[in-house]
Amino acid sequence: MRFSVEGVEGMPEVSEGDDLAAMIAASVELEDGDILVVTSKIVSKAEGRIVAAADREQAITDETVRVVATRTYPGGVTRIVENRQGIIGAAAGVDASNTPHGTVLLLPIDPDASARALATELRARTGARVGVLLSDTLGRPWREGQTDIAIGAAGVHVFDDLRGTTDAAGKPLAVTMPCVADELAAAGELVKGKSSGVPVAIVRGLDRLVGPLDLPGARSIVRPADRDLFHLGSDESYNEGYRAGFDEAQAEGPLREISDRDL
Amino acid sequence: MRFSVEGVEGMPEVSEGDDLAAMIAASVELEDGDILVVTSKIVSKAEGRIVAAADREQAITDETVRVVATRTYPGGVTRIVENRQGIIGAAAGVDASNTPHGTVLLLPIDPDASARALATELRARTGARVGVLLSDTLGRPWREGQTDIAIGAAGVHVFDDLRGTTDAAGKPLAVTMPCVADELAAAGELVKGKSSGVPVAIVRGLDRLVGPLDLPGARSIVRPADRDLFHLGSDESYNEGYRAGFDEAQAEGPLREISDRDL
Repeated sequence: MRFSVEGVEGMPEVSEGDDLAAMIAASVELEDGDILVVTSKIVSKAEGRIVAAADREQAITDETVRVVATRTYPGGVTRIVENRQGIIGAAAGVDASNTPHGTVLLLPIDPDASARALATELRARTGARVGVLLSDTLGRPWREGQTDIAIGAAGVHVFDDLRGTTDAAGKPLAVTMPCVADELAAAGELVKGKSSGVPVAIVRGLDRLVGPLDLPGARSIVRPADRDLFHLGSDESYNEGYRAGFDEAQAEGPLREISDRDL
Repeated sequence: MRFSVEGVEGMPEVSEGDDLAAMIAASVELEDGDILVVTSKIVSKAEGRIVAAADREQAITDETVRVVATRTYPGGVTRIVENRQGIIGAAAGVDASNTPHGTVLLLPIDPDASARALATELRARTGARVGVLLSDTLGRPWREGQTDIAIGAAGVHVFDDLRGTTDAAGKPLAVTMPCVADELAAAGELVKGKSSGVPVAIVRGLDRLVGPLDLPGARSIVRPADRDLFHLGSDESYNEGYRAGFDEAQAEGPLREISDRDL
């Protein structure tokens, strides 16, 4: 079992309206089973998702579906939000790096649809049965630093679903469902980097993960908030509880004791 | 920019007291700049971290430093805890898969020390300047499925620290610090899998990430709870707040209104 990850060198700068499939196909010889990890930023650029930087804070607000956590630092405010794509992260995916001065870039409106369009066009153009992932760089709870994750997917399995199979000792792997799409995006980051100007990586040798274009997309990786034990920041949850407890005690008068029913 | 990831085939089953460095060196020809991603499970086995399964719930409790979140399902209880290694995850890293029936496996006591011992021995034995990561499989907030992350590291940079550098457009990459150790662990999972019996992957071609044996370990990836916006589960935080608000309202009497000072 072996695979390689290679950065696609020499891609020209992407502008609104560019044909990404043509640009990629001109830069690399694609083969059956290749998985392309494409920095979502260049898809955004091709789709014209650039806005003036004067609107950055407003752009973040516009892209926000739900505020998950905020913290004020001496240098400003961190806003962890759920964006229109369902992704939870800082600044709603509004990106001010690697863009011309005075502008910011929004995520593609529907990253799975963008991935599907790109995969469809690449398959048609090259004849190679390839998969496409769109990647973005995000921080995460509990661990420092960022990793790249998959925000769009087409023609590639996003999970290696092992539920129902057994381990080497014959025991069922009941809940094991590796998110291979995120692992592939992470592997791609290792060659694409942040400052290198290499926006596409080709993963070769994992043909087993490539499939039809109508496989579930990266949206299926997003856990619904009502199933998430960390759907709201700790301080925000505490404050919600505090208000509720305070109001309840006032409504019921001073003699009533808190009960499990309240929680 | 290109690297490869290859599973090490033919490793024998690992038992307590086994010399892992000798077993790995016998199975693969190591080169300068190789990074070994080693499933922490085989390190645990070599270190004799196996306990009787009758003690599984007790073992989880013993390994728990702090309960972060719990949820009761029809089939049982999920406990998200911080374990002795500082890692937040389900079941404190107590593992019942791929172990003999009737036993569970605990994580290495000090995964960074285990990684350092293995890297030191491999370098001495083979003469190749290699790095070693110990990996474990964990779920995460907000996203379904699991990814492999690095719980131990030696001789390899855990972050690709870009703070202070600039992007392709010349703007500073102020907060970008990719956690390459987690990305490498994720890449390794793609060849090791869960049921394949391949416990070691060799990443070749990322020599730039290999360094001296005294680089910071994977413990440095763990974000301290007091800096984490999700240090406690949403329900647990709400309940703490509720009790505090309820008590405060009772102490102060029914006429006082909640104020920002309370939150």
